[in-house]
Amino acid sequence: MINKLINRIGELEAPIVVGLDPMMSYVPNHLIEQGYKDKGENLEGVTEAIWLYNKGIIDAVYDLVPAVKPQIAMYEQFGLEGMKVYVKTLEYARQKGLIVIGDVKRGDIGSTSEAYATGHLGKINIGGKDYRGFDEDFITVNPYLGSDGILPFIEVCKQEKKGLFILVKTSNPSSGEFQDQLVDGRPLYELVGKKVAEWGELFMGESYSYIGAVVGATYPEVGKELRKLMPKTFILVPGYGAQGGKAEDLKFYFDNNGMGAIVNSSRGIIAAYRLPQYASYGEKNYADAARQAVIDMKEDLKKAWVKKSV
Amino acid sequence: MINKLINRIGELEAPIVVGLDPMMSYVPNHLIEQGYKDKGENLEGVTEAIWLYNKGIIDAVYDLVPAVKPQIAMYEQFGLEGMKVYVKTLEYARQKGLIVIGDVKRGDIGSTSEAYATGHLGKINIGGKDYRGFDEDFITVNPYLGSDGILPFIEVCKQEKKGLFILVKTSNPSSGEFQDQLVDGRPLYELVGKKVAEWGELFMGESYSYIGAVVGATYPEVGKELRKLMPKTFILVPGYGAQGGKAEDLKFYFDNNGMGAIVNSSRGIIAAYRLPQYASYGEKNYADAARQAVIDMKEDLKKAWVKKSV
Repeated sequence: MINKLINRIGELEAPIVVGLDPMMSYVPNHLIEQGYKDKGENLEGVTEAIWLYNKGIIDAVYDLVPAVKPQIAMYEQFGLEGMKVYVKTLEYARQKGLIVIGDVKRGDIGSTSEAYATGHLGKINIGGKDYRGFDEDFITVNPYLGSDGILPFIEVCKQEKKGLFILVKTSNPSSGEFQDQLVDGRPLYELVGKKVAEWGELFMGESYSYIGAVVGATYPEVGKELRKLMPKTFILVPGYGAQGGKAEDLKFYFDNNGMGAIVNSSRGIIAAYRLPQYASYGEKNYADAARQAVIDMKEDLKKAWVKKSV
Repeated sequence: MINKLINRIGELEAPIVVGLDPMMSYVPNHLIEQGYKDKGENLEGVTEAIWLYNKGIIDAVYDLVPAVKPQIAMYEQFGLEGMKVYVKTLEYARQKGLIVIGDVKRGDIGSTSEAYATGHLGKINIGGKDYRGFDEDFITVNPYLGSDGILPFIEVCKQEKKGLFILVKTSNPSSGEFQDQLVDGRPLYELVGKKVAEWGELFMGESYSYIGAVVGATYPEVGKELRKLMPKTFILVPGYGAQGGKAEDLKFYFDNNGMGAIVNSSRGIIAAYRLPQYASYGEKNYADAARQAVIDMKEDLKKAWVKKSV
């Protein structure tokens, strides 16, 4: 799956993942009305609107980008009805040829991590037949519990040829409270990064490991250091755009061949119609605005990588 | 809710939470057969068996303990069908008067943490009516992303009078890989513990904060230190029994009144029938074995707290 991700990035010249984080405030009114009309003014109606919204985005961008990253919290907030739409979104994205990164940030220990891995990446055999729970291609994982928490995920990745992105340095303002604390004179995220590189050796793809890392776009100096410490680790980069990360700051996240990283944008794409530069599309044409935002992001990211691959 | 938890612990003299972590290997054969018969040999059948198993445990222990702690991973591994049984288990436990601690270990940033908080502790208003997603009384939360990740949960806790248990020092063997790293000469978990105490001041109950901590039973010296650093923080203690934590080691987790902590046991109770000392119950009487295991645990824990409250 990591090889497929890398190939698709190369084919499309787009190291871009579209974050499907459907905040209610992003969903255009006509879709809310449609959802209420089809399913009632209740949880089913709201989640139907979210499904229609996602479908519009996927239809508008699937030929431009290799992957989407649904943020499970945005579905989980609606309980079971939300989880149904999460599954429907995963299925539809895969049907359109997209790689699916589930932003689930799970993490526990031993048999519990194994259960999460089974549910999101693996399968369960009942009476000789295999069943899958959520079935993403990659998921994000939290490292706070150490190797006991991570190794069960890697076992399932090996069986399924799927992958992980482990949180190393997150993009948020307070990420430093714990992640930047100095351990033997070096920040904790470096220690986590080194561990991710070690874990990565347990399951290598052709040029990069199936076990990747999350490093925020908002701390470019950190990205530069971590790229050196984790040369075979593919990096998922949140924080571009709305959170303040700039394309030119990302050049060190990529390797000398312009590979090695994939940049996420969520509201900058899915809610592009709310930004001044795409306002002319109007709410009804939110999907066209999203498509244009992807095209513009692809161009913008060339500041970080395409020049180097010439 | 923290006041209710403390009152119930006192009334029952049982600082015990029963972990509803239904590994498939724990579920007695007669329930698997029943599940298959009722719903088919598929995901529905297996999760039906898990529901029957949980119901049996809850019926056997609800008058002895204040709370149960379903581990969501064990349900999530079965995808949507598993999540349905998670919800059904929460509802049934609450109906029986139990406080429900969802062991979900979620954690993200800003609006994403807010969405998790809404889904697990809060509510959503649609057309003037409130809807709830999973609706636990407490959940566990991962602190790796710092305050940005925690404060949105606390906001929802305040609105709902519900609580959190934030991971500080986990019970697993590799928990030290990151949690024990020295920061300014003190382990990282102490820094996290201090932060949890600070966050706790944002929402105090009568004697303890609504914002609690997870500290494993397997590191009693750590528990002793953390109790001092977090005097108003209620502690959820995993790792007793099967993982090696002993009652006599837990005395420092409790305060001078024998309060301040609640000890989890999962397989030591729900799969007690598989232990030599309860083998005579047999698989079919797994629930009676679970009840006896709770009674014995209550007695055992007196080594840690009841003597002090006399």
